[in-house]
Amino acid sequence: MHPLLSKKGFIIDIDGVIGRGESPIEDGILGVKKLREMNKKIIFVSNNSTRSRRIMMERFRKFGLDVNEDELLMATYATARFIASEKKNAKIFTTGEAGLIEELKLAGHEIVEYDKAEYLVVGSNRGVNFDLMTKALRACLSGMRYVATNPDRIFPAEDGPVPGTGMIIGALYWMTGREPDVVVGKPSKVIMEQALEILNLDAEDVVVVGDQIDVDVKAGKAVGAETLLVLTGVTTKENLEKMVERFNLKPDYVLDSLAKLFD
Amino acid sequence: MHPLLSKKGFIIDIDGVIGRGESPIEDGILGVKKLREMNKKIIFVSNNSTRSRRIMMERFRKFGLDVNEDELLMATYATARFIASEKKNAKIFTTGEAGLIEELKLAGHEIVEYDKAEYLVVGSNRGVNFDLMTKALRACLSGMRYVATNPDRIFPAEDGPVPGTGMIIGALYWMTGREPDVVVGKPSKVIMEQALEILNLDAEDVVVVGDQIDVDVKAGKAVGAETLLVLTGVTTKENLEKMVERFNLKPDYVLDSLAKLFD
Repeated sequence: MHPLLSKKGFIIDIDGVIGRGESPIEDGILGVKKLREMNKKIIFVSNNSTRSRRIMMERFRKFGLDVNEDELLMATYATARFIASEKKNAKIFTTGEAGLIEELKLAGHEIVEYDKAEYLVVGSNRGVNFDLMTKALRACLSGMRYVATNPDRIFPAEDGPVPGTGMIIGALYWMTGREPDVVVGKPSKVIMEQALEILNLDAEDVVVVGDQIDVDVKAGKAVGAETLLVLTGVTTKENLEKMVERFNLKPDYVLDSLAKLFD
Repeated sequence: MHPLLSKKGFIIDIDGVIGRGESPIEDGILGVKKLREMNKKIIFVSNNSTRSRRIMMERFRKFGLDVNEDELLMATYATARFIASEKKNAKIFTTGEAGLIEELKLAGHEIVEYDKAEYLVVGSNRGVNFDLMTKALRACLSGMRYVATNPDRIFPAEDGPVPGTGMIIGALYWMTGREPDVVVGKPSKVIMEQALEILNLDAEDVVVVGDQIDVDVKAGKAVGAETLLVLTGVTTKENLEKMVERFNLKPDYVLDSLAKLFD
């Protein structure tokens, strides 16, 4: 039996582990099913900043995997939770999309214009435009508390690289000199500590599984958990060595896919 | 007589000196008229990256000042000239607006898609969107030569700050680690050397006039010209001392407006 199967909980990345966009990764899904058979506690943690848990549950269903809301911790929901931990019913101006707005509202927050806000929440937006950036700029200049859903600079989409949330973070940094006061998504501890809290486990009792060394492995190490890198996403057999060198970080275990835990 | 009136040529900024957006600054226009009566050589140099010379000539006409194309050197036109000096009929992908595209085409360049381009030209665009940023990102990642019209991070519009070209430069920097290979607009020497060449004068024979210490005064000093700061724009009597301190740069002369040269 693989030594990681002695752990009680699994914090599992979605993109590059369970699916690639709309397409399932069969060996990732198989791995999850086998972990469930062993009654492992599982939470899916993703830096996705545009989708609500509701939307992600639908995607999982299409992958042939039924998950409930408690098993999903995306940057959208985690950001809403984080702000609620600081301030109930906060007034928020956000650059984000409907999925982020849905989670912010579900957590009791109010979406307002930039000049009425207590929080600037930066999340990716495929509808970004000059007006939205002008409002974000002014919110940022005002000095209000500034939270980013995730730090991803580039997202590897199926047809090539596209801007991540980092596009907006970088634009604001260049214009104002400000970086986010808090970044919620991986490799930040913020989302990882929420995952541990939801699982009700200590870091030593969990494994953090993902496909990116600078995101997933770094996030796992940030809370002191063991890490498993799978080669079904950004990191591959071919680039593994380069990636380890580039980020100067070594996962505790490397497997071709999540299912290989059971070989 | 003011000592600067012994100079042969005047390199004059537009926004904050001659006009504020669509509105004229009367004392700036009066100053230009008096300089013309003295037969001074004049060129208007602006970091404007969205307007062609044709559009700017119309604006000057509304201000009651007739100028011809040879007297206008905007970042749009200067960028087109700069690229032509490196490569005739270059294939260009640009983030810019119609005014920039007009000047690039007039200079003989061809506007193409990002995957066919030899140059990435970044200029401001009030129609910026996710698709445009995706293309700019991919152009930037390809390593092609990268020219920015101007470095302005924030533009002080009449209703408040709005993003300058720096918004796109900053976003690309954050995502790719690349800064422009060449920046054309002030305080770069590129546009200033073009101005001197068009005037056919040496730096010691000209005055650089503007309202911003970090843009106009810095540009003048970059080519070794004397500088005149006027207080009709960004710099005011109230913030002058702070601005000098902040940018650690002192203009050679300070006047309330361009017309004060004749007091």
